[in-house]
Amino acid sequence: MVSEPSGAAPGRRAPGRRSGGRAVSLRRSNGERSAAVEQPPIARHRRWFEPTRAVTDDELEAIHLASLTVLAETGIDVLNSQARRLLADQGAVVTGDRVRFDPEMVLDFVAAAPEQFVLHARNPEHDVVVGGDHVVFSAVASPPNVSDVGNGRRAGNRHDFQNLVRLSQHLSAIQIHGGYPVEPADLHPSIRHLLATYDLLTLSDKAVNAYSLGSQRNRDCLEMTRIARRVSDEQLDRETSITTIINTSSPLRLDDPMAQGIIEYAGRNQACIITPFTLAGAMAPITIAGAVTQQNAEALAAIALGQVVRRGAPVVYGGFTSNVDMRSGSPAFGTPEFIRSAMLGGQLARRYRLPYRSSNVNAANAIDAQAGYESAFSLWGALMGGANLVFHGAGWMEGGLRASFEKMVLDADLLQMMASFLQPLVVDDATLAVETIAEVGPGGHFFGVQHTQDRYRNAFFTPMVSDWRNFESWQEAGSPTAEARAADLVPALLADYRRPPMAPEVLAELDAFVAHRIEEGGVPTDY
Amino acid sequence: MVSEPSGAAPGRRAPGRRSGGRAVSLRRSNGERSAAVEQPPIARHRRWFEPTRAVTDDELEAIHLASLTVLAETGIDVLNSQARRLLADQGAVVTGDRVRFDPEMVLDFVAAAPEQFVLHARNPEHDVVVGGDHVVFSAVASPPNVSDVGNGRRAGNRHDFQNLVRLSQHLSAIQIHGGYPVEPADLHPSIRHLLATYDLLTLSDKAVNAYSLGSQRNRDCLEMTRIARRVSDEQLDRETSITTIINTSSPLRLDDPMAQGIIEYAGRNQACIITPFTLAGAMAPITIAGAVTQQNAEALAAIALGQVVRRGAPVVYGGFTSNVDMRSGSPAFGTPEFIRSAMLGGQLARRYRLPYRSSNVNAANAIDAQAGYESAFSLWGALMGGANLVFHGAGWMEGGLRASFEKMVLDADLLQMMASFLQPLVVDDATLAVETIAEVGPGGHFFGVQHTQDRYRNAFFTPMVSDWRNFESWQEAGSPTAEARAADLVPALLADYRRPPMAPEVLAELDAFVAHRIEEGGVPTDY
Repeated sequence: MVSEPSGAAPGRRAPGRRSGGRAVSLRRSNGERSAAVEQPPIARHRRWFEPTRAVTDDELEAIHLASLTVLAETGIDVLNSQARRLLADQGAVVTGDRVRFDPEMVLDFVAAAPEQFVLHARNPEHDVVVGGDHVVFSAVASPPNVSDVGNGRRAGNRHDFQNLVRLSQHLSAIQIHGGYPVEPADLHPSIRHLLATYDLLTLSDKAVNAYSLGSQRNRDCLEMTRIARRVSDEQLDRETSITTIINTSSPLRLDDPMAQGIIEYAGRNQACIITPFTLAGAMAPITIAGAVTQQNAEALAAIALGQVVRRGAPVVYGGFTSNVDMRSGSPAFGTPEFIRSAMLGGQLARRYRLPYRSSNVNAANAIDAQAGYESAFSLWGALMGGANLVFHGAGWMEGGLRASFEKMVLDADLLQMMASFLQPLVVDDATLAVETIAEVGPGGHFFGVQHTQDRYRNAFFTPMVSDWRNFESWQEAGSPTAEARAADLVPALLADYRRPPMAPEVLAELDAFVAHRIEEGGVPTDY
Repeated sequence: MVSEPSGAAPGRRAPGRRSGGRAVSLRRSNGERSAAVEQPPIARHRRWFEPTRAVTDDELEAIHLASLTVLAETGIDVLNSQARRLLADQGAVVTGDRVRFDPEMVLDFVAAAPEQFVLHARNPEHDVVVGGDHVVFSAVASPPNVSDVGNGRRAGNRHDFQNLVRLSQHLSAIQIHGGYPVEPADLHPSIRHLLATYDLLTLSDKAVNAYSLGSQRNRDCLEMTRIARRVSDEQLDRETSITTIINTSSPLRLDDPMAQGIIEYAGRNQACIITPFTLAGAMAPITIAGAVTQQNAEALAAIALGQVVRRGAPVVYGGFTSNVDMRSGSPAFGTPEFIRSAMLGGQLARRYRLPYRSSNVNAANAIDAQAGYESAFSLWGALMGGANLVFHGAGWMEGGLRASFEKMVLDADLLQMMASFLQPLVVDDATLAVETIAEVGPGGHFFGVQHTQDRYRNAFFTPMVSDWRNFESWQEAGSPTAEARAADLVPALLADYRRPPMAPEVLAELDAFVAHRIEEGGVPTDY
């Protein structure tokens, strides 16, 4: 029951599917047989530059104080009685669902959260540090739809889910999973978390994320992660091994499953990524300062709740403030407003000495110039804003409504460009090359000199997708766009994928756990 | 002779031209009649953030000292006897063409250049400040080829040149001209500068650039600019009204026409933009530190020459270091190497208290995702690196070998996104919106409240090209890519263009000057 269903592979036309997309085989469009596409070695990234400060210290303090006022005077609706009780025990004023917070209490708990933590994968090579000056890139998470050039756009399903997990595993630019790279909607919600987490843990050995859709699902995913990592409960409690996204229901509401997620995972020392989704002009004030004030109030409340559950539990401050197109009401991403909010969120997170999460997002419907520039703008906003975790790092389209195989490959290049940018410049006698400049002299060239010969293989970032041929050569090759080139790479990369090893007894234990839980009915739903 | 030749307008199929591209009329692809495309008001931009420091102060000093060593020990070939004499008079050691510089002499002259200056346009509304924390965007300059979706790729010509000037004039994102937006190759080189500058000065009222292709051309363009601005020679010498790009011939050579350009324009208090084109691995060391060391040596030498000619003449430090693709030898742009070099160049320019020039570049052959992300990366490198002048701001493709009408429109959106990002956040009681947050409360929405109603019209950046419709609406509209949307906008924007007024007597004087100089044979060439 946990085996792979049959179906079309991305980049190959599915039998019986309607035509429309072009068929892509393992043969590339320029006629060459595709060889293995080299992946850069696994690397960890650290920021060598000071993040951009979006506002002055006084302005930052004004936002901070305004959000404390919101928490004290308006408060947050917390739709979970245990969470309300825990907060009331610490002095919060509870009236019905509404919780109003004493600023000092909030700040005391927020200060208890760690500045950075290690997120463990089942393969220690993929452990990452979250916080400080570290930068970590995740795959896309949670779109309901998926597409590839050959097969077009379709609802999420387990087959595509698995192939996106394989691609995320194989692309070394992607360091962790951010959730389900597409929603496997063909799996019944009662057992979806079991099979999806099974796939994540067996097809990949990078760190995983679990959705906070009720305590039982949180527990199931944690137990599966424990089995895959071959550790005891005690070790799991010492070693953060799973992330969960906690979206507040903006404005000013913490829903029941999200509160349960905080209680379950903070309690087990796992990482809650608190991310209000504050769209300016819709679920938050139309002004950036106001939207981020509200974001900050919601984030601080949820962070404090986690620290009430367990002081010192790892938590990440997430910023996701963007704007809506006031003509259509559609959310917009990668906009100037998104970027300034991202930078402001980072500045607030640093004020609280918390790791910061931002995202690689865009609202494009095609893998066109808009997808390229909105993603690039988002990434620059994230990086310059001091993001430690860049979620949706690779594969996101349509404001999060679609995962794309080709976009995942294209984004992997963008992430590697950022990773290369994050390599500090080396300035020493050898790189200053004064003697080489003298050797070549006026009017000479550097192609042949030893200084170049010693370094040319790894001197520069080598892209998968970017095409630097001259126009004539590019035209002779069929004028492939970046989307077409990425489409050629998808099947080649999937062919290069190797399933990471897992001890047979671990696999058996995972199989047994999933089988047992499915037999129990998973998590009962009323639909 | 200075009237507009007949020919195809971009976006409309030319009679008699070969087919291939799709015809685009003033009717948009979605069937709607195109209305005027609103342009944001003319604005000047200032950087509110600290530029990113690419290296430590000690490392910067090491690069600075290494470049002084290059100037002292290897020196520069200066292929102009007057320039060599001027430098020798100041203590430089001249041996044949080779000039070796005393570091103290170089630094003394570099220190004489102004930190910022006003660049005057014939319409004072388009005057800009260059330097300090000011940011100015120019149009693309100098490609030999041009394209639009309807008519495809072709050699540069005056008709396209004029339409690109019209588009540059009309798009408010573009603040100054950077040169010829495409080379009008159908104009004979002996008179090209006269007719091209005539078009720039009559079809537009933004500040212009002249190419340094010999003293006589420099003088002609300056005289035409003086006539168009209706000022005396004395006023022109007080008010910088023209820029010229001085490219050193890397490695370590200053060609004769470039030296003439410095002598002519520095002598008349006009702005030389000193830009070594140091491609790492080809015309410069393969290491970024080495390539920028060489860039800096070349820049300092040319800057010093200008200050020897006239202490205090305006000058801009230009950075254009990028890398070649070591597989093909093709230049690459918008790469991590380009960006780190751009940031390092900015740090050096600030060390010398000089305005800094960087560029919006890419190596893409299509207006695809690559064009989008490479341009966005270049722009971010420029902005975060502290660029005061962003050259090639709109319209550049193929590493500078092609100007594109559609890319100019698309880039105008990117520039406006950057302009919007450059607006400082307003943090005050009204924008913090604590009362509005209280008014809406948990679970409410902000669409209808007064705080939103008061601001929704101008709250957010409004793009021309970006399409934020949902997938279904976008598909119903024919699934237009960003390139197709830009192609729809080109004829609409050209239809919106209005020729800026010019007094009849000024136009007559310009006409007479050009007619007279053409009668004289322009600048004689041997081809």
